Amino acid sequence: MTRNRKRAFIENVRPLVDAGAYPLKREPGDSVKVIADIFRDGHQKVTAWVEYRPVDRKKWHKVPMTCTNPGMDLWETEFKVDQIGFYEYMIVAYCEEYGTWVFDTRKKVDANVDYSSDILEGMALAKNYRAWLNESDREYLKNMLQKAEKAGSDLQRWHILSHDRLVEMLAEHPDPASRVESETFKIRVDRKKARFASWYECFPRSCGFEPGKHGTFRDVIKRLPHIAEMGFDVLYFPPIHPVGFSKRKGPNNSLTCQPGDPGCPYSIGNHHGGHDAIEPALGTFEDFEALVEEAARYGIEIALDFAINCSPDHPYLKQHPEWFSRRPDGTIKFAENPPKKYEDIYPINFESHDYKEIWKEMRRIFLFWARKGVKIFRVDNPHTKPFAFWEWVIYEVQQKYPDVIFLSEAFTRPRVMKALAKLGFTQSYSYFTWRNEKAELTEYFSELTTPPESDYYRANLFANTPDIFPTFLHGGGQPAYKIRAVLATTLSSVYGIFQGFELCEGIPVPGKEEYLNSDKYEIRTRDWKAPGNIVDLITRLNQIRHEHPALQEYDNLQFYHSENDKILFYGKSLGDNHILVAVNLDPFIRHSSFVHVPLEKFGLTPEQGYQMHDLLTDRRYLWYGSKNYVELDPHSSPAHVFLLRK
Amino acid sequence: MTRNRKRAFIENVRPLVDAGAYPLKREPGDSVKVIADIFRDGHQKVTAWVEYRPVDRKKWHKVPMTCTNPGMDLWETEFKVDQIGFYEYMIVAYCEEYGTWVFDTRKKVDANVDYSSDILEGMALAKNYRAWLNESDREYLKNMLQKAEKAGSDLQRWHILSHDRLVEMLAEHPDPASRVESETFKIRVDRKKARFASWYECFPRSCGFEPGKHGTFRDVIKRLPHIAEMGFDVLYFPPIHPVGFSKRKGPNNSLTCQPGDPGCPYSIGNHHGGHDAIEPALGTFEDFEALVEEAARYGIEIALDFAINCSPDHPYLKQHPEWFSRRPDGTIKFAENPPKKYEDIYPINFESHDYKEIWKEMRRIFLFWARKGVKIFRVDNPHTKPFAFWEWVIYEVQQKYPDVIFLSEAFTRPRVMKALAKLGFTQSYSYFTWRNEKAELTEYFSELTTPPESDYYRANLFANTPDIFPTFLHGGGQPAYKIRAVLATTLSSVYGIFQGFELCEGIPVPGKEEYLNSDKYEIRTRDWKAPGNIVDLITRLNQIRHEHPALQEYDNLQFYHSENDKILFYGKSLGDNHILVAVNLDPFIRHSSFVHVPLEKFGLTPEQGYQMHDLLTDRRYLWYGSKNYVELDPHSSPAHVFLLRK
Repeated sequence: MTRNRKRAFIENVRPLVDAGAYPLKREPGDSVKVIADIFRDGHQKVTAWVEYRPVDRKKWHKVPMTCTNPGMDLWETEFKVDQIGFYEYMIVAYCEEYGTWVFDTRKKVDANVDYSSDILEGMALAKNYRAWLNESDREYLKNMLQKAEKAGSDLQRWHILSHDRLVEMLAEHPDPASRVESETFKIRVDRKKARFASWYECFPRSCGFEPGKHGTFRDVIKRLPHIAEMGFDVLYFPPIHPVGFSKRKGPNNSLTCQPGDPGCPYSIGNHHGGHDAIEPALGTFEDFEALVEEAARYGIEIALDFAINCSPDHPYLKQHPEWFSRRPDGTIKFAENPPKKYEDIYPINFESHDYKEIWKEMRRIFLFWARKGVKIFRVDNPHTKPFAFWEWVIYEVQQKYPDVIFLSEAFTRPRVMKALAKLGFTQSYSYFTWRNEKAELTEYFSELTTPPESDYYRANLFANTPDIFPTFLHGGGQPAYKIRAVLATTLSSVYGIFQGFELCEGIPVPGKEEYLNSDKYEIRTRDWKAPGNIVDLITRLNQIRHEHPALQEYDNLQFYHSENDKILFYGKSLGDNHILVAVNLDPFIRHSSFVHVPLEKFGLTPEQGYQMHDLLTDRRYLWYGSKNYVELDPHSSPAHVFLLRK
Repeated sequence: MTRNRKRAFIENVRPLVDAGAYPLKREPGDSVKVIADIFRDGHQKVTAWVEYRPVDRKKWHKVPMTCTNPGMDLWETEFKVDQIGFYEYMIVAYCEEYGTWVFDTRKKVDANVDYSSDILEGMALAKNYRAWLNESDREYLKNMLQKAEKAGSDLQRWHILSHDRLVEMLAEHPDPASRVESETFKIRVDRKKARFASWYECFPRSCGFEPGKHGTFRDVIKRLPHIAEMGFDVLYFPPIHPVGFSKRKGPNNSLTCQPGDPGCPYSIGNHHGGHDAIEPALGTFEDFEALVEEAARYGIEIALDFAINCSPDHPYLKQHPEWFSRRPDGTIKFAENPPKKYEDIYPINFESHDYKEIWKEMRRIFLFWARKGVKIFRVDNPHTKPFAFWEWVIYEVQQKYPDVIFLSEAFTRPRVMKALAKLGFTQSYSYFTWRNEKAELTEYFSELTTPPESDYYRANLFANTPDIFPTFLHGGGQPAYKIRAVLATTLSSVYGIFQGFELCEGIPVPGKEEYLNSDKYEIRTRDWKAPGNIVDLITRLNQIRHEHPALQEYDNLQFYHSENDKILFYGKSLGDNHILVAVNLDPFIRHSSFVHVPLEKFGLTPEQGYQMHDLLTDRRYLWYGSKNYVELDPHSSPAHVFLLRK
């Protein structure tokens, strides 16, 4: 028995992630559309606003909602977010008494029935508003009421009382006692790079220029012009920390290593230090800071790997022996995924009684690197650590550094990957490397780029990684790399490649999607101008992405009909910027197809011609009507990336 | 930093009404299916149960969930509800440590790698369980561990430790510290009549046998055999309270009434009393109680109207003048829906400062009649009173009388009708009277009988009401009544007619869906055997409903394909009971069509013959294959109601 004047009902608020349990994700400048069903009992009117604010501000902003479908009681509005961090918002609804009175009385005035009593009622109703109006509004109301009282007839009074300005003013200030609030919902606003970025992954030790010689941060600095020229703006390194000696792995993950073998960087820690130290062979903190600074000059941000793995030599083993699981014989358990063994890696036991200290130490590591200018972390295998830990540590780090981006490297079941994104990861890896056919690409990317998923999951499309050398690339030669490059750069606004992809290089471990002679276990050098490379294509694709805002959006992907199952046809639009892409998914054979342009979407009539400018080849085609012909030879150019011009 | 061992994650519980904000509705004997996504980080196993109980019991029951799709982490189970009232349930999930150990170790045993350390680990793990096992389980575990210790080899130890009974027992008793609970969700269980009932509505004053003479409860008693014979089990009366004198309406809602005019029963209250009194012309409380008792003997329950309307003579006007809105001139406001006026009705103002007393008084009225044996209320215009009031009063009444059924008579916008159902109304009126064509019937009834709607909204299909004389019946003659009778009795498990429908009577107010000479404003008598009546059809339809459990379910409606748009083809199944209905929706012309029986659904092969027994005509047809022919002449029989027999 709590409510009396509170008669409005707010239902079915959307979009939400899990009914509001997790925040929507947006970037600065985005509009947040809010839709809800709002109504009250009876025939009286309601009025509604969205109230929102960055959580660290006191002041709520207010934006009116509009009833767009009265029969369905559908209300909507939108507001902009521009500040990085969390926003909160709620819907508030009120009873609109004066507006209801105007609506009802107008019917009587129009029907010419007696309304003298209604005029008196309306005046009494308006007087109530004095209690909550501000001074100037109250003064205006007072004048209007005085005018109405002095008026010579009820009809004159009606005209005064139904005057637009008065009605609007009172509508904007409904009775506060009738205020009903929805729950409060959250939005996480991440900087634009969360949505739009081009990642280049490399092992800094493989950035040397002399075969067999350990590359350094200084070598990476020398490579920056090349990476920047290709158009990348995030440079991501696997772990840069001291590599363990005990159980160190040799080339190709062999159990024995030779003197001089650098080991796997995921086996973190030795007497030089652990997660807050740098492998001496790479350089010093000074070198690292010089690299971060120099990269910034090229518009490139350094991203680090965050892998909660310890080598048997990690300082934690001595400092916190209780953080590790022990076998009954007293030895420490290495990582296993039976029957696979990872002898050089000791996982931290998050169920240790000391787990709160583990959480705090992990936070310390993140903050340590953030202070050194690292604001992007690719998190290794987050799905094998507690969800609650990630929820806590990401929140804690972003409280201090709101611009930190976390990329979840979880390749596992969909629910687990999605849960990590809901809990706070800014971006996520995806199944992209295993989606090659038209039907599966269409289904998967429709799901990824449409609510509810697009409201919390930003898929960073890696075309390859040190761990994944996709089967599609094994036998397809250069055309296969080109196809995947076009798909990665145009299906999502955020994507990445691992060094060597641009060289179309790679020999698979037989029967596996793994690289032979992987950078994970040895030092490699490459000829960055090796024949057969697709550096030019990648450079051009990155340019196109920078020049065309449609490609910088994540959730605007639309698939269009193409008649040949080997040709994928899709597009992205933002305002007047329309990019349409046709890709031959077959790296071996030329395919042609009629593709169907949704003319209406682009404001075109069937008679109107429009220019399709292939931004890859700079060729221009004049198309008419919806149905047009494309022919794509994978050996020359497996794709058109069209700019549509009316 | 609260969770440590609590690593399971429970998401996306379904079905729910508005994410669990409102209860699911069920009836005794129903199975409640619960589905959720359940998983944890890492590759370790989880285990899950649903725990449920009637809210008034201490003991929780437990039913295990099964993972039906491991890749999608989909878990499900079901449990039965058998007690009227509220149930609550939640999902609980645990980490399944021992099961994970068995799973992992088995891989090593099978791969023939060394597992001696694992055996020791498994034994240590099992020992942990002693802390929470009961005595007999603990004893069994102890014996098994002793056997394992004494065993001669690791393989023997493995066989003991992986013994089914041990593994199952430990799986049933996971570590309580790892317990994770979902929110608690509610189910409202109403008695079967909430779902399956046949309502007959009549004005008792129109049940007299002498034209112009006010009928009485004693007259209604005389009509009981006839109503029972037709197969009705709820007899619903518009208000039976003293009818006001001031502003009393005459026949056809005229503003002037003649001496002897009985007035409109919705204008409630005079010097004889208000909502807890009986119109003297109908009889006494003794008569009413005799009627309730006699009806029960016929298997008929009396349902009353609950209309929060007061005539100007209602005792409340004197006792609680503050409950009514006054005009500026001091007079009390009558009901209006501008420019319509209801001069004989004063609505109660739920925004009165004394509103808590109004709520309590309304509760008192409901409980007053419940004590007199009335357990079904049809609530008049609930959508013009506060939602919060209904939520409160229905809960309060059902706390005292859990078997009370509330039917919401709200004909308004869909969101409002649905909100009332969510808030507590047991049943609701629907748009049935305005759905006549195949497409609109299919769309509307698919929505009504499918989740989410079927989880909280039970549509009671009235074929007509004192307020609604559907256009479809105006010119369609007897065939139109037959068509609507078949639809009402077979599309929903709960339906009703207003007296006279079985006589195919009615003259419309020109241009309106209203009855001329309506029982609402005058006393009427009828010849219950008038020629052209469809009493036999209605009797037969009610019999069929009683004999065939498929028609007693609400959410099992399925539409099937018929090639002619004038022939609607649908069915309801429960276990082996399959009813299929083909209705000619055109009351004027014979139509034929091929209809498509979904053979697979009935376990039939295309070669198999099956009998279609028309329960209306008792004719039997032998059908083969999916596609079969029907021909329906509205003048003889506009419908087949088939029992399918294999």
